[in-house]
Amino acid sequence: MKNVAVFGLGSMGLGMAQSLLRAGHTVHGVDIDEARMAAFREEGGADGAVADVAASLDAVVTVVLNGPQTEAVLFGENGIAAQLQSGTVVMSCATITPALAQDLEQRCAALGLHYLDAPISGGSLKAASGDLSIMASGSNAAFSAAQEVLDATAANVFELGDKAGSGSAMKAVNQLLVGVHIAAMGEAVAFAKTQGVDPDTVLDVISQCAGNSWALENRLPHIVNDDYSPRSAVNIWLKDLGIVEEICAGTGLTPHLAQTALAQFQKAADAGRGREDDAVVVKVYTGEAGIDL
Amino acid sequence: MKNVAVFGLGSMGLGMAQSLLRAGHTVHGVDIDEARMAAFREEGGADGAVADVAASLDAVVTVVLNGPQTEAVLFGENGIAAQLQSGTVVMSCATITPALAQDLEQRCAALGLHYLDAPISGGSLKAASGDLSIMASGSNAAFSAAQEVLDATAANVFELGDKAGSGSAMKAVNQLLVGVHIAAMGEAVAFAKTQGVDPDTVLDVISQCAGNSWALENRLPHIVNDDYSPRSAVNIWLKDLGIVEEICAGTGLTPHLAQTALAQFQKAADAGRGREDDAVVVKVYTGEAGIDL
Repeated sequence: MKNVAVFGLGSMGLGMAQSLLRAGHTVHGVDIDEARMAAFREEGGADGAVADVAASLDAVVTVVLNGPQTEAVLFGENGIAAQLQSGTVVMSCATITPALAQDLEQRCAALGLHYLDAPISGGSLKAASGDLSIMASGSNAAFSAAQEVLDATAANVFELGDKAGSGSAMKAVNQLLVGVHIAAMGEAVAFAKTQGVDPDTVLDVISQCAGNSWALENRLPHIVNDDYSPRSAVNIWLKDLGIVEEICAGTGLTPHLAQTALAQFQKAADAGRGREDDAVVVKVYTGEAGIDL
Repeated sequence: MKNVAVFGLGSMGLGMAQSLLRAGHTVHGVDIDEARMAAFREEGGADGAVADVAASLDAVVTVVLNGPQTEAVLFGENGIAAQLQSGTVVMSCATITPALAQDLEQRCAALGLHYLDAPISGGSLKAASGDLSIMASGSNAAFSAAQEVLDATAANVFELGDKAGSGSAMKAVNQLLVGVHIAAMGEAVAFAKTQGVDPDTVLDVISQCAGNSWALENRLPHIVNDDYSPRSAVNIWLKDLGIVEEICAGTGLTPHLAQTALAQFQKAADAGRGREDDAVVVKVYTGEAGIDL
């Protein structure tokens, strides 16, 4: 059994921390929100400050919002990296750029730490059940050191090479597609409505036709149910499609569709819907067309 | 057993005609290409000119390229509609605008003919096996009159209302999504390559992740195999995403993603790739970025 710290107890991090607990590991949950930390301790999380046990940790899992937060957790003021013993693995799960992943790997290596570039996919339900997909790259030593954490949290581990960066690149590929697919779903639903076809009919038919996507099957029910409570928020796409743009800068590639989708999510955020479920992007279209669903 | 004429013996129409033959119907195959007509007669298609048997037809199935061709087959010079007996059903399978479908329904009704707005989806293999999805709308009488044709050609018939237009609208919704998804797949594959991730790895991982779509599973293998022989050609998207734009005109809705995807397919056509498989849109992106797959 391992001694693990999970940084970030949002919907994804909490689910991973719970899955690690179920597998019998000692789990220290860390979050800027004290209430979340207290709630996780009540579920069986370890007591005490993580700084006091840093030298005994086998693994640190970062499941924070973005690259800057990941960097701050590891190397910021009171960053955990300098407190870890040599051989500890840092498993980085936030969506960050491949360049940052490579940089963090090098800085960890300088401290004798293993780094696994390990972005996650699957949503909060699969995080809670330990059935995530993890797009991972790193040294064999990093994979070995992270094995128990991967076993407890993932149903699928895609091994994408022996260097940090490839995992984050694949996650960005996935996010490019999901973001475009969600916006396209909103566009198609609004388009259907202009022709008198309702969202539930679109769901019934297209989910059995060539126009189907994981995003459509997953998000269109939110529109059908007129329920935009956030399972995944609009703001996530400002971040993740922004990362796609950031990665593209300097490659010569223009991600035309990702940019177009990002513009639609930005309009949703500008309309005050940034914290709503991303399926609400349909309302950007219906608003432009002056129609109701 | 019914007496059926199929207009258009391209990959979709030929498959439907073959499926009707297998079901035991008498099938007259009509095409501007004499060789295609002769080949179909050798497979069991009826001999003789369709004009000579028009009054005995139970059903006319139009599987031509677009709306103007559909209109020409029915109401052009020597159009078949005026030669049919009252009660015959016209089943229109090309992707056309809802407005044209409604117009054709009215003009058929004036001649005592039933009209089924019946765009098809599924590709040439499912056409050949009689397993198409058909997005159909029309009167009960039109559905009844077309029942045997639907039984022989379709695995799924979506009944979308009692008036022409809804079937064509749903087909346009499907094409909007498929077109955007194929272009997004090309964008994602090129994006991955800028980060050192190869197309086969994208296929392996994303087909099991949230970024998956029918289009990705169906088309990405063409890129992996570097095989752009046309299963569905780039030019189809100039036509079908053009129809999406045409339908949107006047609705107030701007189909931002469909327009962006259309622009990418247009670039492929402008580069002389219009008759290649639509997965070749990836090369628009790799060309812009100056990279090879």
